[in-house]
Amino acid sequence: MNAEIIAVGSELLLGQIANTNAKFISSQLSELGVNVYYHTVVGDNAARLEEVIAVAEKRANIIVFSGGLGPTKDDLTKETIARQLGVELAFDETALTYIEAFFERLGRPMTDNNKKQALVLAGSDVLANHHGMAPGMIFERNDKIYILLPGPPKELEPMFQFEAKPKLAARLTDGAIILSHVMRFYGIGEAELEVAVQHILDNQTNPTVAPLASDGEVTLRITAKADNEQEARRLIEAKAAEIQAIVGQFQYGINDDSLASKTVEALLANNLTIAAAESLTAGLFQAELAEIPGVSGTLAGGVVTYNEHTKTEQLGIAPELFAEYGVVSSECAAAMAESVRAKFGTNIGVGLTGAAGPDGHGKQPAGTVWIGISMEGRDVQTYKLQLSGMRNTNRLRAVKFTCSYLLRLLNEK
Amino acid sequence: MNAEIIAVGSELLLGQIANTNAKFISSQLSELGVNVYYHTVVGDNAARLEEVIAVAEKRANIIVFSGGLGPTKDDLTKETIARQLGVELAFDETALTYIEAFFERLGRPMTDNNKKQALVLAGSDVLANHHGMAPGMIFERNDKIYILLPGPPKELEPMFQFEAKPKLAARLTDGAIILSHVMRFYGIGEAELEVAVQHILDNQTNPTVAPLASDGEVTLRITAKADNEQEARRLIEAKAAEIQAIVGQFQYGINDDSLASKTVEALLANNLTIAAAESLTAGLFQAELAEIPGVSGTLAGGVVTYNEHTKTEQLGIAPELFAEYGVVSSECAAAMAESVRAKFGTNIGVGLTGAAGPDGHGKQPAGTVWIGISMEGRDVQTYKLQLSGMRNTNRLRAVKFTCSYLLRLLNEK
Repeated sequence: MNAEIIAVGSELLLGQIANTNAKFISSQLSELGVNVYYHTVVGDNAARLEEVIAVAEKRANIIVFSGGLGPTKDDLTKETIARQLGVELAFDETALTYIEAFFERLGRPMTDNNKKQALVLAGSDVLANHHGMAPGMIFERNDKIYILLPGPPKELEPMFQFEAKPKLAARLTDGAIILSHVMRFYGIGEAELEVAVQHILDNQTNPTVAPLASDGEVTLRITAKADNEQEARRLIEAKAAEIQAIVGQFQYGINDDSLASKTVEALLANNLTIAAAESLTAGLFQAELAEIPGVSGTLAGGVVTYNEHTKTEQLGIAPELFAEYGVVSSECAAAMAESVRAKFGTNIGVGLTGAAGPDGHGKQPAGTVWIGISMEGRDVQTYKLQLSGMRNTNRLRAVKFTCSYLLRLLNEK
Repeated sequence: MNAEIIAVGSELLLGQIANTNAKFISSQLSELGVNVYYHTVVGDNAARLEEVIAVAEKRANIIVFSGGLGPTKDDLTKETIARQLGVELAFDETALTYIEAFFERLGRPMTDNNKKQALVLAGSDVLANHHGMAPGMIFERNDKIYILLPGPPKELEPMFQFEAKPKLAARLTDGAIILSHVMRFYGIGEAELEVAVQHILDNQTNPTVAPLASDGEVTLRITAKADNEQEARRLIEAKAAEIQAIVGQFQYGINDDSLASKTVEALLANNLTIAAAESLTAGLFQAELAEIPGVSGTLAGGVVTYNEHTKTEQLGIAPELFAEYGVVSSECAAAMAESVRAKFGTNIGVGLTGAAGPDGHGKQPAGTVWIGISMEGRDVQTYKLQLSGMRNTNRLRAVKFTCSYLLRLLNEK
């Protein structure tokens, strides 16, 4: 089986955005053993889209479309495909109900063009959109599989991974099933990880093992093909154990885990409350934790002290400390952590200070970060990071390292 | 003139990297008044590359290739084009000398496949590579312009911008230039905006007007084609004024502006300091402002009070207020804003409270948000949002709405 990915959207041809959807879909299809031979990008133009589809039908078994399912006149992907295949468009009641409810909750007038988003190719297998309004669909005709997905990555990625992929796998593997398992690592570089498991990457057959790096995290995706789920799981567990024996100390989670979700999980499991005093991260650490439902069981809150004055006023840190050690120092991070823990009466206090960049801070170069963690009944711990990269990358990295250090301390307990 | 961009490289089809070269080249070509109608990605496979070139020759005047100019067997872009056009490959002496010197400096033996990188299409206009070994080239045949560029962005981008672009501009008989201008809106939906300016979208010719929505923001990109920049700017300004007359109250900025950057800009321009008390957003508002360099001139800091207890302890909000109005209320948002302004001694205080979801809060359904803004010398203002969607979408939307309300208040001053 081979596939072509067709992205529809003039914003791509104007160079406003890159075609990251094709990258995502390609990596997902490769796990299903589908060869992607072509990516095509075409604008919001019916005639050119028709021509592109005709070309794709000549050279691909599976045609995946992204974009053009929205409410505007520019959105014409499904209309064009329906016309070309001589298929009717019909309302998907589930989607329609959701869209109407959405505007009701919003108290915003629902214009008719919004309804258009609930139209699907008659007879297609509808893919639910849990992050937006336009449903996707899988449609089969003349031994070709057409998959239509919305353009926004936030909607397309989960829809492909959790809705389209299993349905496609069932169509492709005649009985055989394909399972994926993601191992998540932090605190180890991609190259370093690859070298450590090189022999596994070199000799992979089934399961396959694919490394992927993003935002300072590295993942290994194990994909097994077997006659039944139990056998696939057995293959995955064996491979995962093999990998853990080598780099297990850097693994923090699996699949959809995030450093924040694992941290909140561990805090709740240990019945510990937490507060944070943030300088360079300016609330990002608390905001990341707050993305996790149930966080209110552990996060009391904290303070953002963005200058020396507020560190003294709000946290009672003596100006002498800044004079002696500087604001970007182990001493300042420790004092912030202890002070905010006392101030909020929590079991744990976290202090984050540093020079996010682009400029350094005093003698500290941009990217220098100090993290302090104060836990009831133990000495305050401090950690130094020397990050590079952009201002905002540094801030996010600082937050992720804080989570990984917290996880280690909590697991030691 | 219209163009097709062909990226050659299996790593793109495997989903290992995104086709950022096509994005860059597209934005550069649009400035030259060249319409890009298609992007194509094909693997390191001669037969499929030949087929893709044949298709492109039927539909484009300019064909831009990226990748496949390197030393390995996989690199076959120029070899394939040469064979297809019946053109010889000849050594470019400049490139050859550079490559030889490179290996001499390294003190490493130069393998013959490295020499291959100095081969160019005979009779082509060579594009120097100041960041790598493989030169690029512009080749003309049968009224078609073929542009070959190396794959690595750090080689391709400067080569296109400083070598290919001027040479291409000189070849384009029609000396028209194209300018784009992006209008950024907040607080209005994509469909709603489109209905409001429908007559403009329906009757667009030059300038063209294209809507694009993401993360609750909507943009209109105005693109004008004219004989000179002054005329293009005149066309854009006229169209922008026409649009502003209809939906101007929702516009917050242009081009690369963000709600956070405009807010920080306005705060600094007015010499105002700000602090925030955040509940549902848990620091996200402060963290978003902190993404903007120079924010330390206005952001003092703030508090995250994630439960009633901390709102009372840290902000001195009377428990009676929660009992009477609830935590998710205009009264609570106002009290948080005034209290944090006093606590941090700033000119402005912001209070954010709400039910992010998935669950509601007391009688308040998920997505209910109250924003309070306390400004020195004015009555505290509060705003209610009824958002839907995901927990974290709601939190980011709440932050963006806060910025948009702040901007309105600051512009009223």
